[in-house]
Amino acid sequence: MTERITLAHGSGGQAMQRLIKERFLAQFDNAELARMEDQAQLALAPMMAAGDRLAFATDSFVVDPIEFPGGDIGKLAVCGTVNDLAVGGALPHSLSVGLILEEGLEMAVLDRLITSLAATARAAGVQVVTGDTKVVHRGSCDKIFINTSGIGVIPSHRQLGAHRVQPGDLILVNGTLGDHGAAILQARGELALSGTLESDCQPLNGLVEAMLAAGPVHAMRDATRGGVAAVCNEIAEVAGLRLTLKESALPIHPQVRGISEILGLDPLLMANEGKLVAFVAAEHAEAVLAAMRAHPSGREAAIIGAVEPAASHQVLVEGLYGTCRQLLMPVGEQLPRIC
Amino acid sequence: MTERITLAHGSGGQAMQRLIKERFLAQFDNAELARMEDQAQLALAPMMAAGDRLAFATDSFVVDPIEFPGGDIGKLAVCGTVNDLAVGGALPHSLSVGLILEEGLEMAVLDRLITSLAATARAAGVQVVTGDTKVVHRGSCDKIFINTSGIGVIPSHRQLGAHRVQPGDLILVNGTLGDHGAAILQARGELALSGTLESDCQPLNGLVEAMLAAGPVHAMRDATRGGVAAVCNEIAEVAGLRLTLKESALPIHPQVRGISEILGLDPLLMANEGKLVAFVAAEHAEAVLAAMRAHPSGREAAIIGAVEPAASHQVLVEGLYGTCRQLLMPVGEQLPRIC
Repeated sequence: MTERITLAHGSGGQAMQRLIKERFLAQFDNAELARMEDQAQLALAPMMAAGDRLAFATDSFVVDPIEFPGGDIGKLAVCGTVNDLAVGGALPHSLSVGLILEEGLEMAVLDRLITSLAATARAAGVQVVTGDTKVVHRGSCDKIFINTSGIGVIPSHRQLGAHRVQPGDLILVNGTLGDHGAAILQARGELALSGTLESDCQPLNGLVEAMLAAGPVHAMRDATRGGVAAVCNEIAEVAGLRLTLKESALPIHPQVRGISEILGLDPLLMANEGKLVAFVAAEHAEAVLAAMRAHPSGREAAIIGAVEPAASHQVLVEGLYGTCRQLLMPVGEQLPRIC
Repeated sequence: MTERITLAHGSGGQAMQRLIKERFLAQFDNAELARMEDQAQLALAPMMAAGDRLAFATDSFVVDPIEFPGGDIGKLAVCGTVNDLAVGGALPHSLSVGLILEEGLEMAVLDRLITSLAATARAAGVQVVTGDTKVVHRGSCDKIFINTSGIGVIPSHRQLGAHRVQPGDLILVNGTLGDHGAAILQARGELALSGTLESDCQPLNGLVEAMLAAGPVHAMRDATRGGVAAVCNEIAEVAGLRLTLKESALPIHPQVRGISEILGLDPLLMANEGKLVAFVAAEHAEAVLAAMRAHPSGREAAIIGAVEPAASHQVLVEGLYGTCRQLLMPVGEQLPRIC
């Protein structure tokens, strides 16, 4: 008989303790979690010099389907929060994991997702130190939702933020745009699209360290929901500047371009889960770009645009024939439950 | 027309930005959140002396109904995580809030819940510094789920934990048991119970500080899912000791006793959201008890039992006529979605 999650697994009693001890602790293998107290206790003080800041980020994941080419909701849950920390210049340290499980979820599926989550955490060099498990009745959630929150340390000399972006900065990305959104669309199978597209879901903290070692970066954002369009509009608004992207410079996978053209979607609005947008002063841009290209997560990195002074903030895309179109903040939702 | 949550509110685009700026930021009024970067950056280093530890806790909330006498899911989400930090001896500092919203949720309901969440955070002296909002299709979750994660600082001299519980320790609680569970049961209205019971949902960090100022405490746990029975069994197992509770000493509200007797429930297994169980050496117990009773969250505090050496760990309840019954770890779920 297929073993499944029952309401008892969320009870705080024996069934929940067994689930945690037998299925979760073995995967995470970490003394702090194994104490099973209500809170993790971390000796962070020795790691923090005077002036260092603590970074704190959270993300909930509701992606549908929960397993897709290139990843699953477990991998995504680690990447999302690790990347939110990393783009602020933080060294990610620890994660919490909050699971909301639907009664009836197959235990074998949960095992696969937790194994993937744990493997991704190891790859990113972060520890899962605290967690929580809730179970809701069949039909009250869709299979599994995961929240991860994360903490990390930002060395005092690292000062990144949208307000630091300057006229003259160049805009860099670490690879092809829209892969995650297109892979999810394809995985849903509603559109009879075939292809071999994979989500770009990956932790970016290693890449970020390589970039910051190569030169100063004014701001970074990971381009998840709303894609590069949302990031660029947010930065343009905070900095009060014009950002101009060059259509010809955008790295876009041919299959993503194909899907986008068929469906009338814009890869600049599509979600990524392993791509960041960085703003770097022109004199350091080539060095940072070279460091990105030398890293496995940045082989197809490119300079895609530049920052200019402007009377009012805006984001433009310069087309192949020199004409410009305005790239607006996405209004609604191209693809619900993309992450 | 009733304003409602739409999928666009989870898009990462304009609708989400408006929701956050107009409805959330105003409530939280905090510069770190208002930066709207991917991560909060906290100057915690000056607050941490050498040897201090960082506490990190997470909890997801799926309570049904989302509003109930004495609280709502917003208030609960703050109390749950603040209390998980406080019972470890931490001074709670900051919270993250991750919202999963169902398409169609009434905006007026969301406003009420966020107002309550923000008011509870202010009352507990913690700041909401980072957040995330997702929206799922109608029917893919039940109205609203909230995850909060929290960080706090544990001064180096505070060393609490189940392994520190000793034979001879007395067992204290800060008031009546089972109020939250009984209030939720009543609020569901399925059992045609009438009454005026309120959930005990409250932040306990103020009470914990008063207790720790009065005397050393070996271990504390908040008695949420699984109630006092789960806490006592967890502690007994880790410490390898026998815990004996005195039936006559248990503070139980007459209405909770009534509901329990009608339904065959045990208040020791029912959830609390503002009650902790503390283990204190006998010579300090009266001082800690007095400090609890002097605090608004501990007026009905009581010593409910004692810790004894034992060949194998167990939890006993000594009845009114001197007979003992074993209090087992709850097996399954008395009340799903209690928190």
